[in-house]
Amino acid sequence: MKTTFTLLDLLDDPSDLRLLKINQLPKLAAEIRAFLIKSVSSSGGHFASNLGAVELSIALHYVFDTPNDSLIWDVGHQAYVHKILTKRKAKLSSIRQKGGLAPFPSRFESKYDAFGVGHSSTSISAALGMAIAYAAQNKRNQAIAIIGDGAMTAGQAFEALNHAGGIGANILVILNDNDMSISPNVGALQGMLTRALSNPILQEMRQTSKNILENLPRQALNIARKAEEHLKDFVTGGIIFEELGFKYFGPIDGHDLDELVATLENLKSIPGPKLLHVATKKGKGYAPAERNPIEYHAVSPFDPEIGIVPATANSKEINFKIPKKLTYTQVFSDWLCYKAALEDQLVAITPAMREGSGLVAFSKSYPSRYFDTAIAEQHAVTLAAGMACAGLKPVLAIYSTFLQRGFDQLIHDVAVQNLPVIFALDRAGIVGPDGATHAGSFDLSFLRAIPNLIILAPSDEQMLWAMLNSAYAQNCPVAIRYPRGNGRGISIADKTQILPIACSEMIFEGGFNYKIEHTKEHKKISLLVISIGSMFEMSECIASFFDASLMDLRCVKPLDGRLLTSALTKHDFIITIEDNAISGGAGSAIHEWMSENDIYKPIKHFGLADIFPEHGERAYIMETMGLSSDKIITSVSSWLAKNIQNRSSDK
Amino acid sequence: MKTTFTLLDLLDDPSDLRLLKINQLPKLAAEIRAFLIKSVSSSGGHFASNLGAVELSIALHYVFDTPNDSLIWDVGHQAYVHKILTKRKAKLSSIRQKGGLAPFPSRFESKYDAFGVGHSSTSISAALGMAIAYAAQNKRNQAIAIIGDGAMTAGQAFEALNHAGGIGANILVILNDNDMSISPNVGALQGMLTRALSNPILQEMRQTSKNILENLPRQALNIARKAEEHLKDFVTGGIIFEELGFKYFGPIDGHDLDELVATLENLKSIPGPKLLHVATKKGKGYAPAERNPIEYHAVSPFDPEIGIVPATANSKEINFKIPKKLTYTQVFSDWLCYKAALEDQLVAITPAMREGSGLVAFSKSYPSRYFDTAIAEQHAVTLAAGMACAGLKPVLAIYSTFLQRGFDQLIHDVAVQNLPVIFALDRAGIVGPDGATHAGSFDLSFLRAIPNLIILAPSDEQMLWAMLNSAYAQNCPVAIRYPRGNGRGISIADKTQILPIACSEMIFEGGFNYKIEHTKEHKKISLLVISIGSMFEMSECIASFFDASLMDLRCVKPLDGRLLTSALTKHDFIITIEDNAISGGAGSAIHEWMSENDIYKPIKHFGLADIFPEHGERAYIMETMGLSSDKIITSVSSWLAKNIQNRSSDK
Repeated sequence: MKTTFTLLDLLDDPSDLRLLKINQLPKLAAEIRAFLIKSVSSSGGHFASNLGAVELSIALHYVFDTPNDSLIWDVGHQAYVHKILTKRKAKLSSIRQKGGLAPFPSRFESKYDAFGVGHSSTSISAALGMAIAYAAQNKRNQAIAIIGDGAMTAGQAFEALNHAGGIGANILVILNDNDMSISPNVGALQGMLTRALSNPILQEMRQTSKNILENLPRQALNIARKAEEHLKDFVTGGIIFEELGFKYFGPIDGHDLDELVATLENLKSIPGPKLLHVATKKGKGYAPAERNPIEYHAVSPFDPEIGIVPATANSKEINFKIPKKLTYTQVFSDWLCYKAALEDQLVAITPAMREGSGLVAFSKSYPSRYFDTAIAEQHAVTLAAGMACAGLKPVLAIYSTFLQRGFDQLIHDVAVQNLPVIFALDRAGIVGPDGATHAGSFDLSFLRAIPNLIILAPSDEQMLWAMLNSAYAQNCPVAIRYPRGNGRGISIADKTQILPIACSEMIFEGGFNYKIEHTKEHKKISLLVISIGSMFEMSECIASFFDASLMDLRCVKPLDGRLLTSALTKHDFIITIEDNAISGGAGSAIHEWMSENDIYKPIKHFGLADIFPEHGERAYIMETMGLSSDKIITSVSSWLAKNIQNRSSDK
Repeated sequence: MKTTFTLLDLLDDPSDLRLLKINQLPKLAAEIRAFLIKSVSSSGGHFASNLGAVELSIALHYVFDTPNDSLIWDVGHQAYVHKILTKRKAKLSSIRQKGGLAPFPSRFESKYDAFGVGHSSTSISAALGMAIAYAAQNKRNQAIAIIGDGAMTAGQAFEALNHAGGIGANILVILNDNDMSISPNVGALQGMLTRALSNPILQEMRQTSKNILENLPRQALNIARKAEEHLKDFVTGGIIFEELGFKYFGPIDGHDLDELVATLENLKSIPGPKLLHVATKKGKGYAPAERNPIEYHAVSPFDPEIGIVPATANSKEINFKIPKKLTYTQVFSDWLCYKAALEDQLVAITPAMREGSGLVAFSKSYPSRYFDTAIAEQHAVTLAAGMACAGLKPVLAIYSTFLQRGFDQLIHDVAVQNLPVIFALDRAGIVGPDGATHAGSFDLSFLRAIPNLIILAPSDEQMLWAMLNSAYAQNCPVAIRYPRGNGRGISIADKTQILPIACSEMIFEGGFNYKIEHTKEHKKISLLVISIGSMFEMSECIASFFDASLMDLRCVKPLDGRLLTSALTKHDFIITIEDNAISGGAGSAIHEWMSENDIYKPIKHFGLADIFPEHGERAYIMETMGLSSDKIITSVSSWLAKNIQNRSSDK
């Protein structure tokens, strides 16, 4: 695929774009689309949604005075073209990589990124805040939110529309309707929007009603006009927005630059809350992505001439040497189907993350027991509570970072009522390329204070499986957190294993022998390494290095008091290692236990530093956050040296 | 007001109610209303909303087979009549008091309380969960959510409607529309509903359109029917629900028992998602409450013959003796107006809690800088972030417990972007009569892990004022948490005071002299009491008792490292006292600091126990949760004794 970028190469920032003639824009769109295919197929990243947003991004920057006018891209994975047009073309191939462009718009990266995003459905709130601020300061800047149909299902979007419509704020919401969020879209709103774009009967009805109205007696004209407008909104799906106080426009073809530019130009001068419904096609211009937008939503590098090659077959040979490691997501997925076959009451819920959360197999095998709430984390949690009240056993599969959206419901609806809901928290800890917005850095801290809740963190695949069995047997809420990516390559040997809830285990006991480097002196001291969840392999390596004892904590709440007290009492020094924030994390829980039980010893916590992580590969980010074997070993060495000397001098 | 309760006295549970003839129900309603006025005016509690829900509660229990059919009362402060009808009549006067009836429906209290509530807008999610569960088990039980117009503005309600409508679940949502939540209602949805109930032009239009349609040519009848139905929905405000997949019925008069019973009987047999719009009047039947439903929303005991007497005038005499103590809410309220006069960029936001959060004066003095988002915590937080991006300085006034609803937005939109938003967290710690659902027990734990966020906890009124000044001067997010109720009676002497952020203070240093009770032996040991926020007076009392040193922490994040390290180093024993959960609270932060700085000493945390609190008076609940001077002194005494002996025997 050879393309010259004659127009694109001329553009540095949007002011250059605005010098082009409108009839040059389609050529620019073609160049950008070719550039995108070339760049993202080599770097990986979000793909299909960006191909669908080429013309819309061009038209917005062409019509509006960015960065004085604020474009707020909801979620932000569709903002690559926006980045290309705003001085970041050359760096696009570095997106999501360490030191490269951020995966989403970021205020720290560009003045054109009016608002940082990552989680969905925040854009209308933010745009409204800006619109209010501009008005308060008598500024004429415009605030424009660009939001997908999937993100529109979240309650926050509704809250923001309701507020903006109620106060008549001057904002423009662009509904980028590609009839497809990451998972197939669900919910009534979606049905309405789809109907708007496709239903020929309603399109015909629209025409018929026009005919009727044209023939109405004159005295009924006013009321009829209203009815007609209303009917139009009905068939186009706009009524819900009109009811919320927005002027509704569209739907228009989101790949027709003439129509986009003309419509946006008109809208610029219309005051008050406006919503423009734009129909786009995910993957537009790259046939395989048009055919399969879910597969091409986010991609690893691939050959654009061939397309994505499914990872099957000819990896068999390799499998002889390296046993295939399952992801924790896959283990959860397998467990869910295994358990569902045994337990009629098991149901599974996802807030629009079927693929990422490992629910595809379950949704196919047990469609009537599978519930996709659309992007609606708050509702998903309370829905589970309601189900549990009436005799089902719901498993809510959700990323750690998205559970933050259902935090109040977890406390108020599940924990206060002590209902048996299982929270399968995927992507706990550092997630990697998606950066700060998607990190699951906080779950242990925000969950630990909640009464009635059991919190588990498996250290391998078998453990995750057994913990899921154990959780299912409980009559109270249980959260199980596990990281993104592969497990340790341990196969599920015992599918029926059930662990006691407080199930810490002493993996090995150390040799009680520690050498102080600079004095060459040997001291007989003992070190206890307490590993939390997925930090097991790193902890094992560190414990071995120091000839220390190693405990796998497994259960963060309640703590395994008997074993813990005995181990803490036996050892001179303790370190805790977790991939949660140190503040309030599992290490802190152990510290609290010590205080409660009058055990006062040197203890050091290793976990995520009190900063938001960059984006980049997981291991690299972990290291920048303080979590690598080398860093911990160095730190523990000097800590031990210092404290052993203190002890010596004490005596 | 003398009334005999001839019918009411006959009823024990709803099965008795269902034996009555329909023409007896109005008399029962009158009796219940009289009983409510008598009972709540003597006990205090939620009042106006319950008077408005008398007929609706009767009709629901009369028509549906409770408890087999599930009634889910949204928020739940309107469920007193439901409690009266379900075996709890005799205990109603104990509501919200220790050992008495729970303030809201509670699954632990009655099998008729299908779902525990307290926070708003959860009922449709819960009802949907139950409906799904009943269907999955081939049960014919019905799930009915009763939700107010105010609660309908929250995103979660929309999420649940969208999901229920999308899957066609068999639920009934009753919109109890009294055009008045706690604060005057706002937002576009509210406008729509109000229009439905009151607008004579639209009522006329409804009639006109009917006339037109009757005269249409036959061939246009089908399309016209649709238009007519649609137009009806439009004028009644039902269209938004129809668009979300619900069958819309009403509005009907919520005080007309014949109409209520007949309509509910019909709805019982209609499958799928249904919404019944019921118009009620808050305070119905008690004239002062009808006139002023906000004042009568929740009441202290009053004489029903006179009504609530505003607390003014003749308390002057008392004031000579007891200086009037301001609530922390009032201090915040005064500061907001003071600062707004100085700073044009200050704006204030509330998610529908103008009165409780102390925003009445500000909203009157600065209406254009006051933003009530309706019940929409998620949106409120991101709105503030958007405002901060565009040059305003937003102050979000929110209860600690409701910030749980905006937790993700606080992390994702405010903290990741390090935006200067001030969170004024009222009702932190134990709230009291509203019980577990409203306790602000967790904020320090869930906020402490968030990077970039400053967390302050004032120990008196002047401190709160100075901290607000300090927060306003920052260029990053700041949360200030303060409790419900009165301050310490300290007047605001210095309105311009600005504190450094990490502003701990050593209030006094102890005498380093501690007597071990049972041995009568005196040991020279030193105890440091670290007080967090509103625990100051209790901490002062405890520190004095032990002749200990007292530190007022004030800033929970970042810690005042220099002062803290020096104090921790100087003392032998440390106790921390806070009204947050011990898990991950401020005591834990100090513990983490000690670990980070290699200070290993006996430390004991006092804070809220790991259980959900009961309801009752604040001081009583604090005591049950482990927080009273006596309990702490006893506990510290034995702790010191044990550890001092340990130390002695060590040496």
